[in-house]
Amino acid sequence: MTESGKPLKVAVLGCGSVGSQVVRLLQEQATDLAARVGSPVELVGVAVRRLDAAREVEVPEGLLTTDAEGLVSRGDIDVVVEVIGGIEPARSLILSALEHGASVVSANKALLAEDGPTLFEAAEKAGRDLYYEAAVAGAIPILRPLRESLAGDKVTRVLGIVNGTTNFILDKMDTSGAGFADALEEAQALGYAEADPTADVEGFDAAAKAAILASLAFHTRVTDADVYREGIAEVSATDVASAREMNCVVKLLAICELREQPDGEEAVSVRVHPAMIPRSHPLASVREAYNAVFVESEAAGQLMFYGPGAGGSPTASAVLGDLVTVARNRRNDVRGPGESSYADRAVLPMGEARTRYHVAIDVDDRAGVLATVATAFAEHGVSIRTVRQEGRDDDAQLVVVSHEATDAQLSATVAHLQGMDSVREVSSVMRVEGGAE
Amino acid sequence: MTESGKPLKVAVLGCGSVGSQVVRLLQEQATDLAARVGSPVELVGVAVRRLDAAREVEVPEGLLTTDAEGLVSRGDIDVVVEVIGGIEPARSLILSALEHGASVVSANKALLAEDGPTLFEAAEKAGRDLYYEAAVAGAIPILRPLRESLAGDKVTRVLGIVNGTTNFILDKMDTSGAGFADALEEAQALGYAEADPTADVEGFDAAAKAAILASLAFHTRVTDADVYREGIAEVSATDVASAREMNCVVKLLAICELREQPDGEEAVSVRVHPAMIPRSHPLASVREAYNAVFVESEAAGQLMFYGPGAGGSPTASAVLGDLVTVARNRRNDVRGPGESSYADRAVLPMGEARTRYHVAIDVDDRAGVLATVATAFAEHGVSIRTVRQEGRDDDAQLVVVSHEATDAQLSATVAHLQGMDSVREVSSVMRVEGGAE
Ligand SMILES: NC(=O)c1ccc[n+]([C@@H]2O[C@H](COP(=O)([O-])OP(=O)(O)OC[C@H]3O[C@@H](n4cnc5c(N)ncnc54)[C@H](OP(=O)(O)O)[C@@H]3O)[C@@H](O)[C@H]2O)c1
Ligand SMILES: NC(=O)c1ccc[n+]([C@@H]2O[C@H](COP(=O)([O-])OP(=O)(O)OC[C@H]3O[C@@H](n4cnc5c(N)ncnc54)[C@H](OP(=O)(O)O)[C@@H]3O)[C@@H](O)[C@H]2O)c1
Repeated sequence: MTESGKPLKVAVLGCGSVGSQVVRLLQEQATDLAARVGSPVELVGVAVRRLDAAREVEVPEGLLTTDAEGLVSRGDIDVVVEVIGGIEPARSLILSALEHGASVVSANKALLAEDGPTLFEAAEKAGRDLYYEAAVAGAIPILRPLRESLAGDKVTRVLGIVNGTTNFILDKMDTSGAGFADALEEAQALGYAEADPTADVEGFDAAAKAAILASLAFHTRVTDADVYREGIAEVSATDVASAREMNCVVKLLAICELREQPDGEEAVSVRVHPAMIPRSHPLASVREAYNAVFVESEAAGQLMFYGPGAGGSPTASAVLGDLVTVARNRRNDVRGPGESSYADRAVLPMGEARTRYHVAIDVDDRAGVLATVATAFAEHGVSIRTVRQEGRDDDAQLVVVSHEATDAQLSATVAHLQGMDSVREVSSVMRVEGGAE
Repeated sequence: MTESGKPLKVAVLGCGSVGSQVVRLLQEQATDLAARVGSPVELVGVAVRRLDAAREVEVPEGLLTTDAEGLVSRGDIDVVVEVIGGIEPARSLILSALEHGASVVSANKALLAEDGPTLFEAAEKAGRDLYYEAAVAGAIPILRPLRESLAGDKVTRVLGIVNGTTNFILDKMDTSGAGFADALEEAQALGYAEADPTADVEGFDAAAKAAILASLAFHTRVTDADVYREGIAEVSATDVASAREMNCVVKLLAICELREQPDGEEAVSVRVHPAMIPRSHPLASVREAYNAVFVESEAAGQLMFYGPGAGGSPTASAVLGDLVTVARNRRNDVRGPGESSYADRAVLPMGEARTRYHVAIDVDDRAGVLATVATAFAEHGVSIRTVRQEGRDDDAQLVVVSHEATDAQLSATVAHLQGMDSVREVSSVMRVEGGAE
């Protein structure tokens, strides 16, 4: 393609970890970007909160402004890159940008998961693009493959390791035998976890990404309020060791599944929780803070996308990829594929999610206990796949792995077990994913 | 998006492994395809060689024809899917389809690698799309991520396991210790290798894919004639065992690299050969007939794309993904990104390719041999990273791993070694990839 036509004007909102790298790449790659877009790409403004803060990039003279709203409503901006984060003012700025005729690229998972439909409708109405590859799994191209490459296929399941902090912690626990607290401390010392690690450790970040993935995979609106969420703070060294004994590893997974219902309709199950997966599963070898998304579809089979899930520069790569597409679309006066929610499937409550379970139970070591426990599982319709019994002095531990059952059936079983005389404690319950039933 | 507008007419050329699955998906996914494209997608013809052959799919009455040229030149076809394979008549049919106003989706790696530029120019001239995701690594979305997701980044290296047959054979050799011949026989028995395995085993198939990957990654025209190619027939059980000792595994890799030259210009190195890679490398865990493509880029870092590299149904998934995009573009009367060869970099001859080497040398077991061998390496500018010496009765084996050197330097070293009195045989030379220098 030859470089021609008038320059495309780009405004960047935010100049932190991601924004500074976006600004850097816009400058360093200017020649290549122009060749790939077909027009020069001109940075016309960078909105920040503090004009005098130290930046990781040199912003050209006169471009910094604290008036983000003024920038997006100038009227001559072709593309607005939103890398401020959070709900407000990011949402208002994106809506204003679209109203004023700009296309938008955003990395804002929190906003897209909470209020995506508002933004998609505004983009549709304005006839502009809203792209957000960087919002899920950083640099890894996953939204575009789901939306475009797999558009002729039927995606049935997405399993993602989409939070680097928790993967780092769980990987540490697996390789060193450390407990959660020590592993978290190490992650913090190395800069993989924030001082307040709640958003990562409690699964909020992964839940936002799960909502975005499920929406695209199943052509259905899913917001973070639809996502069942459990973090990793309760994962113990013993859980990790039990997983190891079963030749499994514990990962925090974002799980999006299509499930056929008794009435023949297909519904969506979306959840984030720690789970055991077999060591032979491709996701099991995702180490440290890397991310990966595993996709199952009817025709393509099993695919995996792997890479750095965060970091200023990787995330900026994803932002710039979107920017090139959006800029090309502007030049051609077209839109890329917008929101696709035609399937409008129901989202299942967690009680109806089906999976397998690993349950460790401390029991009295006497005859007949195994039979009583097995009966409790059977009464709630949970069929047992394997049981391992380990005698200790006067008590014993039973480790049960079930066949697929609903979360409601399992919860009822656990409550039942906890009320039994011969059961001292249900010491661990963990879901088992990624294997064949 | 709502389904509206007149149906898009699709012709499929070929109804073999891939074509039959394309036809099946067009029928089974009709409702979803219509919703995703925005118009119904209508199959209007299927060209084959033999009308009466048994097919894996039921082709609707009246659609089969042996007149492929007549089908593509009807003048009312929106999209032609070419899944015949080979150079002719595939090339003429694609050119005719473009001339008659159709967009084209193809899975034909051989044709694209041999004569891509002719096709790209025809598509450009016709103002139509030519998409070919299925030509590399089957179902794995890799061309679209390279072309679009990484469009704002600078790709520096692509390492691909892009041939399932050879990966299956090498994996067998690694896990069972089998020799090449036995592993090939097993692959043939299981349907992973053809009766005439030349195209796979000798690296022709991988070389075609390497050319396609390098063209996209480096915005430069690369054809299969530019690709250095070495197959796996010479890989011995001993090579695989040596790799194992170094905690490596042998893989047939398609390698595409950007290399800065002494004059500051960047040139492209493209080659296919067996190589040792560390077991900790993400590509090392690609088992059996799976494919994976590992991409390094300046901003995104290291990405990997993994999945089934062949098979009718996975390949059809990639074809249909392209078909949805191309059909959407038809509806909007636009083209997607076409060929991008603006960078027009030089392609290096193999002698200038730089990598590390593993060289096993049988020598007389006497004092001073190591020094003589080391001197030979030094004379040709190949710096040694490690040497391991193993004494056997009256001879010894030296295993040398070099630092990065050019292929020409290494070849000269090997020729020198072979002429030395104290050297009985250079028993194995293998490149080492995927590690830090
Ligand atoms: N960091 C990552 O690895 C990563 C990965 C994937 C996605 N993301 C997403 O990318 C987005 C940005 O993340 P980040 O890590 O770059 O955040 P950050 O380092 O905290 O940067 C935020 C930037 O926004 C600016 N800002 C804040 N409020 C503003 C306002 N009201 N008006 C104008 N500018 C304002 C800040 O200005 P000052 O500099 O003046 O304070 C700062 O430059 C978030 O949505 C995040 O979820 C980040
Ligand atoms: N198979 C895979 O896993 C795979 C994976 C990736 C890419 N691909 C590529 O996909 C393409 C198709 O591969 P395939 O495995 O499906 O091949 P295939 O099974 O051999 O099928 C070829 C089809 O083309 C038809 N054909 C041959 N010559 C023709 C002619 N002159 N006019 C009209 N039709 C003609 C054949 O008709 P008849 O049936 O009447 O003989 C047959 O239906 C190739 O380019 C291949 O490289 C294949």
